[in-house]
Amino acid sequence: MPETVSQQTTPPEPAAGYEPTGRTIPTRSRERASYDRETVHSILDAAYLCHLGFVRDGAPVVLPTLFGRVGERLYVHGSTGSRPLRAADGNDAGLAVCLTVTHVDGLVLARSAFHHSLNYRSVVVHGTAYTVTDPEERRIALDAIVDQVVPGRSEDARPADGKELAATAVIRLDLREVSAKIRTGGPNDDPQDIGLPHWSGVVPVAPAFAAPVPADDLDPAIEVPAYLNAL
Amino acid sequence: MPETVSQQTTPPEPAAGYEPTGRTIPTRSRERASYDRETVHSILDAAYLCHLGFVRDGAPVVLPTLFGRVGERLYVHGSTGSRPLRAADGNDAGLAVCLTVTHVDGLVLARSAFHHSLNYRSVVVHGTAYTVTDPEERRIALDAIVDQVVPGRSEDARPADGKELAATAVIRLDLREVSAKIRTGGPNDDPQDIGLPHWSGVVPVAPAFAAPVPADDLDPAIEVPAYLNAL
Repeated sequence: MPETVSQQTTPPEPAAGYEPTGRTIPTRSRERASYDRETVHSILDAAYLCHLGFVRDGAPVVLPTLFGRVGERLYVHGSTGSRPLRAADGNDAGLAVCLTVTHVDGLVLARSAFHHSLNYRSVVVHGTAYTVTDPEERRIALDAIVDQVVPGRSEDARPADGKELAATAVIRLDLREVSAKIRTGGPNDDPQDIGLPHWSGVVPVAPAFAAPVPADDLDPAIEVPAYLNAL
Repeated sequence: MPETVSQQTTPPEPAAGYEPTGRTIPTRSRERASYDRETVHSILDAAYLCHLGFVRDGAPVVLPTLFGRVGERLYVHGSTGSRPLRAADGNDAGLAVCLTVTHVDGLVLARSAFHHSLNYRSVVVHGTAYTVTDPEERRIALDAIVDQVVPGRSEDARPADGKELAATAVIRLDLREVSAKIRTGGPNDDPQDIGLPHWSGVVPVAPAFAAPVPADDLDPAIEVPAYLNAL
């Protein structure tokens, strides 16, 4: 009944894309850049590891770490003693960070060394990270980080107790200044190179999971859960 | 003939490890850190993608990029128009960078959310990157970057011509302030959690290569080279 549908009050849709800024517009290969929200989300959601950059004593630091996405927010956790989390804590100005996620999808071998490349999907998020203090938001963030690695796992694990929560810092980074970059397809050889005798093409790459290895002390009666077989 | 051997002048061996510094000594999980040269090299050599961090207008930037290792030097290349390479160029002081390489080897699922982790091998290199101008070193660097992706490939591709070389910037980062970090093994569950009904263990992860896909315009007479089958 179209009449009824047309009368429904629909919530305002978030913009379909992120607003490009000076630092999210690439200086090269602009045709590979995307600001589409769904594209960004899908690249983030296919990952659980990010590389988090921050500045310490004027110099850049890049550390690999887990992250979780909840809507338009990314969360990173760590020991309250770890450097970026300590730097963000109690700092009302937050911590300037760059959070980058990269998937390699293929090795691109062209006839010319110059046109060698990778097929990849990456997301770069610029912004300011703030320490999360609200207990409920911290709980949601910690669950999201576990579920980012293995969807569904947070419900099948003992939640953090008071002591563990006290030892864990959580920082939040909003998805505002964001871009994705994607390369797909075969090599872009120059026309005059097509006849060269070198193999040209793509070697696809993807992460592969092997059969889960139970802990030595796991009760043999506990079977591999369905959410692991889904990997 | 031991006498002869004892009389040989042996070149000074490079130190077996890198000297730890304030920023390569981790604030946590110190038992996972290593400064052993062979360990660092093996982690770097198993990779071709790094995350390069630098500071732009006071804020951190982290970009995924290819790299190559030649002895104690890492090389990164890019368009002469790309940001980090432009920043390093013509700057006698070089560009402060942090270059990080990470391999994920397994998802570590503990009974407690708190003890979830990854098995991983990472290397973090701090230092100053300088633009490489010497033509011979540039050639070696560009070959190394191609061979880091597919060992042996640089000999089976057309080398860069003058125009391509002019469009390519190369930066060098020496391996001086370097650390590796490695986690292996099963989950570190607390003793009081062992009896909980949650599956606990490790899901191994590794990159998997699929069969090479020839370019659409590849002469069918050109077979897949041995160095690709070796992947």
